Amino acid sequence: MKQGSRTALVVDAILRKISSRALQPGEKLPSIRGFASTMQVSPSTVVEAYDHLAAEGTIFARRGAGFFVGRSTQPFAVSEVGPQLDRSVDPFWVSRQSLDAAPDALKPGCGWLPADWMPNTAMRQALRNLGRSDDALLSDYGSTQGALNLRRLLARQFIDEGLNVGPDQVLLTPSGTQAIDLICRFLLRPGDTVLVDDPCYFNFQALLRAHRVELVCVPLTQSGPDIELFEQALIQHKPSLYITNSALHNPTGATLSPQVAHRVLNLATSHDLVIIEDDIFAAFEPSPSPRLVTMEGLDRVIRIGSFSKTLSASVRCGYITARADWIEALTDLQVATNFGGPSPVATELIYSVLSNGSYRKHMEALRNRLTKHRREVATRLTSLGVTPWLMPRGGFYLWCSLPEQVNAADLAKATLVENIVLAPGNVFSVSQSMTSFMRFNVSQMSDPKVFEVLERGLEAR
Amino acid sequence: MKQGSRTALVVDAILRKISSRALQPGEKLPSIRGFASTMQVSPSTVVEAYDHLAAEGTIFARRGAGFFVGRSTQPFAVSEVGPQLDRSVDPFWVSRQSLDAAPDALKPGCGWLPADWMPNTAMRQALRNLGRSDDALLSDYGSTQGALNLRRLLARQFIDEGLNVGPDQVLLTPSGTQAIDLICRFLLRPGDTVLVDDPCYFNFQALLRAHRVELVCVPLTQSGPDIELFEQALIQHKPSLYITNSALHNPTGATLSPQVAHRVLNLATSHDLVIIEDDIFAAFEPSPSPRLVTMEGLDRVIRIGSFSKTLSASVRCGYITARADWIEALTDLQVATNFGGPSPVATELIYSVLSNGSYRKHMEALRNRLTKHRREVATRLTSLGVTPWLMPRGGFYLWCSLPEQVNAADLAKATLVENIVLAPGNVFSVSQSMTSFMRFNVSQMSDPKVFEVLERGLEAR
Repeated sequence: MKQGSRTALVVDAILRKISSRALQPGEKLPSIRGFASTMQVSPSTVVEAYDHLAAEGTIFARRGAGFFVGRSTQPFAVSEVGPQLDRSVDPFWVSRQSLDAAPDALKPGCGWLPADWMPNTAMRQALRNLGRSDDALLSDYGSTQGALNLRRLLARQFIDEGLNVGPDQVLLTPSGTQAIDLICRFLLRPGDTVLVDDPCYFNFQALLRAHRVELVCVPLTQSGPDIELFEQALIQHKPSLYITNSALHNPTGATLSPQVAHRVLNLATSHDLVIIEDDIFAAFEPSPSPRLVTMEGLDRVIRIGSFSKTLSASVRCGYITARADWIEALTDLQVATNFGGPSPVATELIYSVLSNGSYRKHMEALRNRLTKHRREVATRLTSLGVTPWLMPRGGFYLWCSLPEQVNAADLAKATLVENIVLAPGNVFSVSQSMTSFMRFNVSQMSDPKVFEVLERGLEAR
Repeated sequence: MKQGSRTALVVDAILRKISSRALQPGEKLPSIRGFASTMQVSPSTVVEAYDHLAAEGTIFARRGAGFFVGRSTQPFAVSEVGPQLDRSVDPFWVSRQSLDAAPDALKPGCGWLPADWMPNTAMRQALRNLGRSDDALLSDYGSTQGALNLRRLLARQFIDEGLNVGPDQVLLTPSGTQAIDLICRFLLRPGDTVLVDDPCYFNFQALLRAHRVELVCVPLTQSGPDIELFEQALIQHKPSLYITNSALHNPTGATLSPQVAHRVLNLATSHDLVIIEDDIFAAFEPSPSPRLVTMEGLDRVIRIGSFSKTLSASVRCGYITARADWIEALTDLQVATNFGGPSPVATELIYSVLSNGSYRKHMEALRNRLTKHRREVATRLTSLGVTPWLMPRGGFYLWCSLPEQVNAADLAKATLVENIVLAPGNVFSVSQSMTSFMRFNVSQMSDPKVFEVLERGLEAR
């Protein structure tokens, strides 16, 4: 088929109808004679065009019934749902590069601690204990809400923080991401609007795209969302949901102030906004900072969290704490989509490590180690003209601005060739305004090669 | 508020507008003065009605801006998506009753083997091995497609069956149900139509309802779907997806014949139908029976499976084998909704048991044990007037018709009081035509109490 030919014009006309949904998947195409007349071409040109489209699988012939728009050729590709940004730095970029990196890759862009910083001794002990447990724990499905011992332990922690819940209001999930996903399935419908911080954790964007919702963002300040723009966004876009990290915000490390928290909650009430507070970095705080959920209760705030950052990302488990009636409905939804709660073997391992006497000491040592690394890495980065936006109270992230005119995505692509995975700013930004920012994980920068390659990369730009 | 009062009329009018979506969630209600005029009542009556609706949380007041339809009060409840059947025997009934049963409950209605029938010795060995593995396996996220060793092992099995795939065409998931869920997210949109067997596994219905699709069903014969009604359903309802078990069909134990398989595939091609073949019971077959996926390849058939029935339901993992381009998109979707593949600790345990020399012998003994139990239970049930619809070639289910005029749901409710969980026919039936059928799990009927209670229950009816 020649470009610009009559046949190509007919092919293009049909493809436009399909992409604009004027022709739906499964729908019958116009008759050959009719469409020939519409397009002012001969019927044989239409036949040729339809044959071409059938050969490439876009449409298909049904014997004696004509041509139909194919279905199996156009399933849902989540990476195509949002605006087609530069594919190489879309919200999947860091996930795929860091999760599937070669074993010898260096990953200052990844979102987890090195394996030898994790509580592996307690985990090995937990595995030995599990090997001596009874058959049922090793082979049966667990209960629909997940293991009671772990739900009790979490509820006790929450009560200590001033959030009055029982274990019945805790639902365990197979991962923290699945906790958010389950809530999105429960609260959202395609076309709804969701508010996120700018910048925010890149996988919020990927996940929300999978729910086919509109994303709007509000700039983050060092003490939470910019409250005037937050209110404007509520008025203008009427989002039904806001997803945020209050403590040790990802990627910035910012901490929500009590004043901003109070105002966010008042606006949420007057605009009927539900909030997911993702509390995955809680254990890295030196002391507890304000939480929306402890200020408001569980009327319109949902807390989620997981153990992947502090305990193990290999044994995965997340949780949801929410209103009792929502937990009931979320449990049904989890039965439908996962047949039951998370793996009992996984929850038992996590319970076992959390209740091991050594875990508290391990976490204390880990927080001190991270404080030291944050300072050292900040100093070294600053000497390269890479400036932390703030010094976080805890955790392993430094959100930094690059020297003038350095494009973070270009730098990340260049270092990837040298087997170093970075996390360029725009993967975190719905507004795509973080071109010259970079998120660094201070725990993954002990190899001198990281700074060598970074320095070379910055000089080349 | 009195029933039939003017206020109640205004309340009803607003509720009707909300339920018909004439008033959308978040939308402003009519002004008090305007609606008073519309309804020909006084403004104070409308105020009273709005206050009542606000008090019960249906609407809410925004200071100075009027009343708005609430959002947080009406989230998505999956159990309400389908037609509201008798709630007590809906597709969630068996899941919730059997997963959350008391430890001493007897469960002839559940879908798994007793814990002491499972390969626990090999699992304990696997846990000991895991305790000696390196830190990375215990604490890091795995790769996005899941562990390569397990994908290689599965691909080799598939090649042995004649399905030519490499490990790149296998995606590991956190469970078999999540494998189906991920495919549904990929292929379906709300309002699409999906075809299932009648009867079919009850959780297919629960899962598909969560995707807000229309369900149509086709009667199952002893050798697969009734092929004439199958074709009629394709013509009449234009489903985009068909979900089935080819071997040891759940709940019937039926086996797809080569002739029916061939015709199903031809109809799928001419009607552009995608098929999910859920192969979760494969290891229970005495010898392999026909599979759609091995006859067709992976053009429009997707194979899914898991290890929950044969290896452990506590260490969960599922898999998808599909076209390479679909696996790529499904991997992105899994990153978005789960951040990465299944737990590496889980996949390592499963790989370890599968590749343990004792596993093959264990499965052989298990198949023989089940054959004996199927025969014995069938004989005892028959003596009670409970007749197996067919004698399955393998597995642990017997799909039985009850004596005339016995309602399976009533019987199940009665035995539940005596701590015995049964699986009444209609939970498996989209058409709700299986009122007098019951699924029995022969491995869960060794306690004489099961038959005593069953006999008493049947006599009472």
